[in-house]
Amino acid sequence: MTSSKISTVTIADVEAAAGRLKGKAVRTPILTSPALDERVGGRILIKPEILQRTGSFKFRGAYNKISSLPEDAREKGVLAYSSGNHAQGVALAAKLLGIPATIIMPADAPAIKVANTKGYGAQVIHYDRFGESREVVAEKILSERGSYLVKPYDDPFVIAGQGTVGLEIAEQSAELGTPPDAVLACCGGGGLTAGVATAVTAKIPGAKMHLVEPAGFDDTARSLVSGRWEKNDPAARSICDALLSPEPGKITLPINQELVTSGIAVTDDEVRLAMAYAFKVLKLVVEPGGAVTLAALLAGKIDCRDRTLAIILSGGNVDWERTEEALRSAAV
Amino acid sequence: MTSSKISTVTIADVEAAAGRLKGKAVRTPILTSPALDERVGGRILIKPEILQRTGSFKFRGAYNKISSLPEDAREKGVLAYSSGNHAQGVALAAKLLGIPATIIMPADAPAIKVANTKGYGAQVIHYDRFGESREVVAEKILSERGSYLVKPYDDPFVIAGQGTVGLEIAEQSAELGTPPDAVLACCGGGGLTAGVATAVTAKIPGAKMHLVEPAGFDDTARSLVSGRWEKNDPAARSICDALLSPEPGKITLPINQELVTSGIAVTDDEVRLAMAYAFKVLKLVVEPGGAVTLAALLAGKIDCRDRTLAIILSGGNVDWERTEEALRSAAV
Repeated sequence: MTSSKISTVTIADVEAAAGRLKGKAVRTPILTSPALDERVGGRILIKPEILQRTGSFKFRGAYNKISSLPEDAREKGVLAYSSGNHAQGVALAAKLLGIPATIIMPADAPAIKVANTKGYGAQVIHYDRFGESREVVAEKILSERGSYLVKPYDDPFVIAGQGTVGLEIAEQSAELGTPPDAVLACCGGGGLTAGVATAVTAKIPGAKMHLVEPAGFDDTARSLVSGRWEKNDPAARSICDALLSPEPGKITLPINQELVTSGIAVTDDEVRLAMAYAFKVLKLVVEPGGAVTLAALLAGKIDCRDRTLAIILSGGNVDWERTEEALRSAAV
Repeated sequence: MTSSKISTVTIADVEAAAGRLKGKAVRTPILTSPALDERVGGRILIKPEILQRTGSFKFRGAYNKISSLPEDAREKGVLAYSSGNHAQGVALAAKLLGIPATIIMPADAPAIKVANTKGYGAQVIHYDRFGESREVVAEKILSERGSYLVKPYDDPFVIAGQGTVGLEIAEQSAELGTPPDAVLACCGGGGLTAGVATAVTAKIPGAKMHLVEPAGFDDTARSLVSGRWEKNDPAARSICDALLSPEPGKITLPINQELVTSGIAVTDDEVRLAMAYAFKVLKLVVEPGGAVTLAALLAGKIDCRDRTLAIILSGGNVDWERTEEALRSAAV
């Protein structure tokens, strides 16, 4: 793989997305916690996308994409495949725009994600995450109906929409007078990371971008190091249901290759500790995939000492049993 | 009871408290939730004091009081009695100011509150909430040590400190361009309500102030109606451990009599629904007493239709078993 240096997503695309999302997406605040700062020895800016509509950042990319589709989308509808957060984002964005939505979800998706997606009026079709290719299931429906596919990450409009999280971090940290030295985003297919990296590197001078993946699903981190397209072992498992992409995206990886400093992998136990810490100390409900950046901090996997770091808590759609498991197993 | 109309706490006291708290307390943001707005049919401004240091607004009043004590407090120390949130607020404020703290807590206080209070370095002494008077236990220690008593609500400095929550609501809602038509605060002894009412009535033209209490502990609401000092039935019980005061405060009630429009009472089941809604939809961890304002909204006990209401989520220090109980019993 060679980096083109001609990025498919520019800061102008992210700014245009911000214009489309104005008044539609929640401008989530920056939260601070003296207790967390004391624990890690730095100043942490928390960007809680758990407070975004549908409970994750995915609404941003979905709305930016669907609001940019041709007029005939109202008849043909949109189709998406997703473990749950993209599903909810697409379902709500389509509903707000008056466009029918069909969502292909894995059979083992968290119940709360399935229920919410149906609650936004989308038709849900299930598939076996480890036995079928969701892309193949999607292609069949697309050819039958002519619907527009809203990909979870490998689409410039989706990436630009997710990038508005980074734009807001830049704006809000400037207002607070504390621009971050580095920004941490979770990485599944790489859409959030690519969008945020585009905004952060353009708007915060000197800021570094890091991505965090579940151990066993650190395909992007390994790809950044090797310069090749690394895939994950199909036998790998993680509690981070939102981040289980088999390999980096075709559009996202070149962007991340160009803009991201390094990748960090966190174990399920480290994620459980972060979820429990979020519940007990931060008073925030964070799903496993949404807690990986906090997990990286608490596990000491990134240097916080006397630095300002911004972390994105990307989603909060978690079944209670998963939170309980974290609270039972982790000593905060 | 006659209202003096010469309030013991003025807006100048609240503004002075804001000056003392600057850089010490978290300036908690205003959160919004389109899902909540849609459900109740109005615009809701959420002031999440769950994100305050120690997990509740109580840090504000405690810090304002303790930072205003004479120099010899460093030797004599401070004493407080509290079901837990005031305890944590006093313990942390005292620690930050280098003053020893002793806290008298009920034997049945939530484990998280006891553990946190000890974690801030305070000495904890337990008493039986329904068999002993915490005031009597406190008096014994005060006469022995000469410590300064930091009352949970019946103190002008404590009330003024809590009032900074209302001052921030006024400032932040003005920045957002959406001043509330009414503000809802929980009410135990009445300190938060009195302080916030002082700020809100001074700073938000036309805004009404409402207080919310647990059913069976609606002493202040009944006192506002009867004009007498109403007490609660000693046999009453509620899951809202933070709001179980036996009667209104001597300083707080006259203020609330003058400034509060009405009181609302919510049942434990309504509180459980609010806690579950906060977890599932808002992604916030709220303790029972901290959820009563949200409970009032969700139960339809205050008119939200086409109005802007600010609600304070006053605390998030909840043992997770209590959250689980709420999630199991309530259909959100």
